[in-house]
Amino acid sequence: MKLNPAEGLRDFMPEEYFKREYLIEKIQEVFKKYGFLPIDTPVMERKEILEGKSGEETEKLIFRIQKRGDKLTKALEDKENLPSNLSDLALRYDLTVPLARFYAKNRNNLPQIFKRYHIAPVWRAERAQVGRYRELYQCDVDVIGSASPFIEAEVILVVSEILSNLGFKEFTVRINDRRLLKALMKAVKVPSTLYDKVLITIDKMDKIGLEGIKKELAARGLNDNTIQELIKTINKLVKEKASLKAIEIAREFLEKFLDEDNNVFEHLKKILETINSVGNKSGNIIFDPFLVRGMAYYTGPIFEISSPVVPFSIAGGGRFDNLIENLSGQKAPACGFSIGFERILLIMNEQNMFPENLGKIDIFIPLFSEEYFVDALKLANSFRAHSLTVEVFPEAKKINKQMKIANKKGVSNVIFLGENEVKNKEINIKNMGTGESKTFTDVKKCVEWIQNN
Amino acid sequence: MKLNPAEGLRDFMPEEYFKREYLIEKIQEVFKKYGFLPIDTPVMERKEILEGKSGEETEKLIFRIQKRGDKLTKALEDKENLPSNLSDLALRYDLTVPLARFYAKNRNNLPQIFKRYHIAPVWRAERAQVGRYRELYQCDVDVIGSASPFIEAEVILVVSEILSNLGFKEFTVRINDRRLLKALMKAVKVPSTLYDKVLITIDKMDKIGLEGIKKELAARGLNDNTIQELIKTINKLVKEKASLKAIEIAREFLEKFLDEDNNVFEHLKKILETINSVGNKSGNIIFDPFLVRGMAYYTGPIFEISSPVVPFSIAGGGRFDNLIENLSGQKAPACGFSIGFERILLIMNEQNMFPENLGKIDIFIPLFSEEYFVDALKLANSFRAHSLTVEVFPEAKKINKQMKIANKKGVSNVIFLGENEVKNKEINIKNMGTGESKTFTDVKKCVEWIQNN
Repeated sequence: MKLNPAEGLRDFMPEEYFKREYLIEKIQEVFKKYGFLPIDTPVMERKEILEGKSGEETEKLIFRIQKRGDKLTKALEDKENLPSNLSDLALRYDLTVPLARFYAKNRNNLPQIFKRYHIAPVWRAERAQVGRYRELYQCDVDVIGSASPFIEAEVILVVSEILSNLGFKEFTVRINDRRLLKALMKAVKVPSTLYDKVLITIDKMDKIGLEGIKKELAARGLNDNTIQELIKTINKLVKEKASLKAIEIAREFLEKFLDEDNNVFEHLKKILETINSVGNKSGNIIFDPFLVRGMAYYTGPIFEISSPVVPFSIAGGGRFDNLIENLSGQKAPACGFSIGFERILLIMNEQNMFPENLGKIDIFIPLFSEEYFVDALKLANSFRAHSLTVEVFPEAKKINKQMKIANKKGVSNVIFLGENEVKNKEINIKNMGTGESKTFTDVKKCVEWIQNN
Repeated sequence: MKLNPAEGLRDFMPEEYFKREYLIEKIQEVFKKYGFLPIDTPVMERKEILEGKSGEETEKLIFRIQKRGDKLTKALEDKENLPSNLSDLALRYDLTVPLARFYAKNRNNLPQIFKRYHIAPVWRAERAQVGRYRELYQCDVDVIGSASPFIEAEVILVVSEILSNLGFKEFTVRINDRRLLKALMKAVKVPSTLYDKVLITIDKMDKIGLEGIKKELAARGLNDNTIQELIKTINKLVKEKASLKAIEIAREFLEKFLDEDNNVFEHLKKILETINSVGNKSGNIIFDPFLVRGMAYYTGPIFEISSPVVPFSIAGGGRFDNLIENLSGQKAPACGFSIGFERILLIMNEQNMFPENLGKIDIFIPLFSEEYFVDALKLANSFRAHSLTVEVFPEAKKINKQMKIANKKGVSNVIFLGENEVKNKEINIKNMGTGESKTFTDVKKCVEWIQNN
């Protein structure tokens, strides 16, 4: 029988689990301090909730739950509707669509402006490759119910603080607006059928450069004139990319191509100014007119965080004012940010950004003889009362065997509880790092010694 | 479109999430102090791993994952093997079978005696009824690799400490041994084909009494003589049920019917003595010769915890020395305890056993004017640096509207940041519980005031 997890799935050993737990705790801590509230939704949703929300590509990857019993038999008989009638539920592939469903269902019992975070697994039947998993954690923070640019500012600030707390330095927040991208397409007369494809190409700016973009656009069927026009515009915008001035330049070019007389530019400036005034921990924020972001549901500002240590983004988000209305018919502006949990974990692993003592056992008590087990437990409990982690070995194997086990576990201290120690009620402890040994009669003093070592 | 979760599934609102989180934290804290290690496994396992392990009843409840693409098309063509060939993966229905798979796969990289806990959801397609969910959390602690009775003692002690910490009082740990049940069946000459059914009946002792048992045994086809014999034996054992002496009485009756010359009684006594010597927090432990436990895989001692506040058990476990061998061909003794997470949550809710301030927002800052948003954020950050939860309202609505929102949220304090406060750098705070207001210029002093209120 195959004992490894199925394709793209992972077991987590204790040392990996401790890291994931640490990451979740560090993230949650900041979300909570900002007043974001946690929720949870079932891992399974009705199929119709998940379908038609996030583009074909994502939906191909949905894991569907098979009907059971009579329902399955009936479905198999109804040959015309095979195979789509075989399932009625599916595993969520992101946390945004479930949030929209949750909000539409529960909005009467939620604050008018609902600030929530959700750290939980999602499932995608991706082809297995390095760093791609079929079960992966997502970490989303979203605000529903307000169109204020302060919302964008707040989600960017909270995510920046998290990254900073985790040890990320000199990261960059890039921000753009979906509506500007559309205006850009109009401005240079890209046929509307090619918008999406051209935008996907533009998104690769940092990776393939202007020449690469030219080539790819031609391959995508854009005519030469339009390509020239687009490149010219891009060139002008690129020069001032990293400054607030870029917004003004963009306004000059693009304002007249915006669909409605709306406040795209004022909204963007407010976000940038707010963040710059509060002071963004360890990161800076820039307007990037070529930022695209994949998800179809974004309607306004979009943003992404990249770190100099990796060539991909580590967080991404934006405003999606229509998603909840699409689902429930009820209008509700919304804006969110998603932290690339698995990516960040990978980076932190590679860059040794986790604390060293994660999951460390403070005290290991080998068992000299079965008759001392109760004494060992009582002693262990007196240390556990001080929140120390204590393991009592349950078998009276030879002490050198038990010490080997302790070494392999990397325990911090060992307490030897032999005949003398039991009789004299002594705590004979050895620090496994320094090799120093000491004898105590008082638990508290021993705890202090442990904590100062 | 239906917006509620599908049958048997639940959304968790923030206030419910906080309770679940609290419960998990309180449980984990104790597991960790005892040196148990956390792991995680995928929610999906290969179907063949889950099938054939836990009895027909449980397996009927498995949610299966449908194959996709070409695989699905092929499966539909292969009519002979329909419908079982439509799926290759399934959602786990417990945490024990995944543990056995995990251990068999990873044992070379795990400690020889592996102490692990796992708190995670499982899925069962149960018929919806009050308190039965299709997605439910399980909370298991298990030790693999040791046959010592100290293992049983330790898992019972750790679970008892957890229940005690959660506020459960006067609970009872009942303990028996699967082999004694089999011996009992032999002793009174129950036909071996009826063992399971008769045991299910005996398990109801506390609920239906001796008369009820008699009736049910007759209905199950047991002959009168055997019933009489069984009742006689039960009567003798019942008298001393709650004392260590009961083990000696059971030994007299049953020892000669044990399959092998093994140490059932010594093992049981060691467990009871160890626990009694260490002192079991808030609970007592008794030998209960009629405790049965449902799971097919138990091989030795079995145990259960019941609380006077509810008519069902709140934790159950036992030794399962063959499960890992069945799966992998490698011998590994194992013993575990499972805490009834959802039941405990239900009880704690009903009995008001959760702290009052779960998820409380410490400070709410209404927004007097958009121009003060940055000041409000800066002020908020200075309190967040002291680990306080601060929410800044993002829209400059009328203050009485914002105060209504604050009241609805049940925030602890409100800081008013108007023109004067911004100009004079004052912190004008009101405790929403007592109604007391105070003005500070120093954040630290204000934090102290908040913490002492």
